[in-house]
Amino acid sequence: MHAEIIAIGDEITSGRLLDSNSQWLSLRVEELGIRVLYHATVGDELEPCADVFRRAIDRADVVVVTGGLGPTADDLTREAIAEATGRPLVLDPASLEHIRGIFARRRRDMPPRNERQALLPTGARMIPNPEGTAPGVLLEVPRTDRPPCRLFALPGVPAEMREMWHGTVAGELRQAGAGRRAVRYRQLNCFGAGESQIEAMLPDLVRRGRSPRVGINASRATIILRITAEGATDEECDAAIEPVAATIRDCLGNRVFGEGDQQLQDVLVELLRQRRRTLAVVEWGTAGLVNHWLGTAAGAGGPFLGGLVVADKAALPTALDVSADLVERHGSVSAETARAMAEHCRRRFGADYALSIGPFPPLDPKASEPASFFVAFVGPNGVVAHEFPYAGHPELLPILGAKRALNVARLALGAVET
Amino acid sequence: MHAEIIAIGDEITSGRLLDSNSQWLSLRVEELGIRVLYHATVGDELEPCADVFRRAIDRADVVVVTGGLGPTADDLTREAIAEATGRPLVLDPASLEHIRGIFARRRRDMPPRNERQALLPTGARMIPNPEGTAPGVLLEVPRTDRPPCRLFALPGVPAEMREMWHGTVAGELRQAGAGRRAVRYRQLNCFGAGESQIEAMLPDLVRRGRSPRVGINASRATIILRITAEGATDEECDAAIEPVAATIRDCLGNRVFGEGDQQLQDVLVELLRQRRRTLAVVEWGTAGLVNHWLGTAAGAGGPFLGGLVVADKAALPTALDVSADLVERHGSVSAETARAMAEHCRRRFGADYALSIGPFPPLDPKASEPASFFVAFVGPNGVVAHEFPYAGHPELLPILGAKRALNVARLALGAVET
Repeated sequence: MHAEIIAIGDEITSGRLLDSNSQWLSLRVEELGIRVLYHATVGDELEPCADVFRRAIDRADVVVVTGGLGPTADDLTREAIAEATGRPLVLDPASLEHIRGIFARRRRDMPPRNERQALLPTGARMIPNPEGTAPGVLLEVPRTDRPPCRLFALPGVPAEMREMWHGTVAGELRQAGAGRRAVRYRQLNCFGAGESQIEAMLPDLVRRGRSPRVGINASRATIILRITAEGATDEECDAAIEPVAATIRDCLGNRVFGEGDQQLQDVLVELLRQRRRTLAVVEWGTAGLVNHWLGTAAGAGGPFLGGLVVADKAALPTALDVSADLVERHGSVSAETARAMAEHCRRRFGADYALSIGPFPPLDPKASEPASFFVAFVGPNGVVAHEFPYAGHPELLPILGAKRALNVARLALGAVET
Repeated sequence: MHAEIIAIGDEITSGRLLDSNSQWLSLRVEELGIRVLYHATVGDELEPCADVFRRAIDRADVVVVTGGLGPTADDLTREAIAEATGRPLVLDPASLEHIRGIFARRRRDMPPRNERQALLPTGARMIPNPEGTAPGVLLEVPRTDRPPCRLFALPGVPAEMREMWHGTVAGELRQAGAGRRAVRYRQLNCFGAGESQIEAMLPDLVRRGRSPRVGINASRATIILRITAEGATDEECDAAIEPVAATIRDCLGNRVFGEGDQQLQDVLVELLRQRRRTLAVVEWGTAGLVNHWLGTAAGAGGPFLGGLVVADKAALPTALDVSADLVERHGSVSAETARAMAEHCRRRFGADYALSIGPFPPLDPKASEPASFFVAFVGPNGVVAHEFPYAGHPELLPILGAKRALNVARLALGAVET
């Protein structure tokens, strides 16, 4: 079984929008043991879209399309499927009812043009879209001498697309026999060393032809190691992956912070939850990135209480009760200022722990050369303060800084309490 | 002239790597006035690659390929071009010399397998790669009844690919007549109405075959209208775009908040800067999203002072000086609580204006049913408070809420001071 992923829209072919749907879908399709051999993207034009669909139906057994299901005149996916398969569009009453229901829940009338979203090629089924107005399309296209091609069309809105994948598409593909040959993945996420440094710490694992396969790549200062095994059963794959993962953990120690989708903030929140401790965060110049990440971390609701975001030294006395005198004495870029910020924040939010970072950029004339920044972490067991070089690609600096702060808290929390 | 962008590699079709090269190349190609109609991605297999190339040469006048030029056995781009065009590979002495030179500069011997990288299809020219071992391939493929197709193959390493684009490909395309016909774009960004509602407010602009073309799409609750005109000169294009843009602005009024890359936060910061006013923001439950966006907005440094992020009602008295009594009397979800939060934040940061949003989710038992949330904006001219329905896709709710808050501030600021 081979699959093809198709993305529709001028915003993608023109480069205005980076298509991340195709990557996400490829990962999901390959998890089912179906190899993705092609991606295609085509602009909002009927005949080119129909042509791309015809070719995909011919060369792939599973076709997943995203985009072009909106209500406006340049949304052509339904028409192009109809054109490519010779199946005229018909109004699907269930789809229409669903769309009306979504508008009713949002307390709005359905504009007449949204009725277009209820059109389906003859013989197609609707894929429910619980949260959006665009139902998806599921069509089995017969082929001579071969099993039919299964075509799924989903909206381009990533959240809706993902929900519909999990709600309908994955199940349909499993029923159709996907997943009979097992493919399993395990991903270890690392922080605190560069990609080639990490690779050099490992025995010869990242090599073509090895089984299980180990891939390594860097994603915004996080190093990701991905182990892939194929076999007859999930158990066989997992058994092959396990010793490789153990070797990696042995070699990298606490640089491995999590697995799968886990980010540093998820791990930190989980550590706090296990210890029944709370945290507040004060940031100076990092645009609230740590607060934002912690606020959206898995299960953040309990342990993360909130925090303060300051853009300028002027706010320190009024918003933070950090005296101008203290800052003057030690400099903005100092362990003392970082600690005072964290201590104030801890008091104000009544938190067990507080984390401070900044200032970004470190403009203080008293700052050491080359530039650096401080992270402080205060709690019932005292304070740790770390100085880090302010160095890296300008676009990555706030991200790297925020991750360094989270990592200080993670390592300190892992060390002081168990 | 139409173009197709092709990316080669299992790491992309499998979803392990997000392909950003195709987006970057699309932007560059369209800047030359060549419309990109297709992207294609194909795994590391000879016949599928050759087939993708054949099709691209047939349907596009310019084809830019990235990836598959490495020295290892699964790098097949050269072979696939040879196969697709019927031109056998021959060793190119200039390429070989270049590769040897790169190794010499790195003070390493050239491994024998790198000799493969000096193979070119008969009649092709090498594209110099100043920093890498993989030279590119430039081939003009004759076509019956049409000008030849220009095919460029570049390495997948983004930095090398970009350098070779600027060093060779862009110049070749300009010489071939690209850029002689002008293409210009203008993008209007709207907020405060849905995609189909916006389309319905416009005269029949978003219609196939119209010139200039108007495309409409939604990106995380922002509606984007893109006007595209082709013509002999930039001036001719701009003259054609201008009346369309004016019509859109007339029809949509203050729902159009900006152009090009401008986001709501950029516009708000610019309004504050023009008025020499400062702003602080308090968020309850939106994970610091408004603070984060404002902190990263274009030129945020001056007008945006910072803010508070709270995750729980418990923090209101200590972190915000908002009394439990007031919240008890009016409920968490109330104009009074929203206003008290904003007023405290304004005082604390010594800001001219303050904006408050939340709580998210609106769990207050006193809250109206169905659920809603409040945004308050306070400043020297008084206070505005708005109630919005808490409705939409769960993943999009904080984003939609944050944009509603920014939009309240934008509209209030636009109205009260000029």
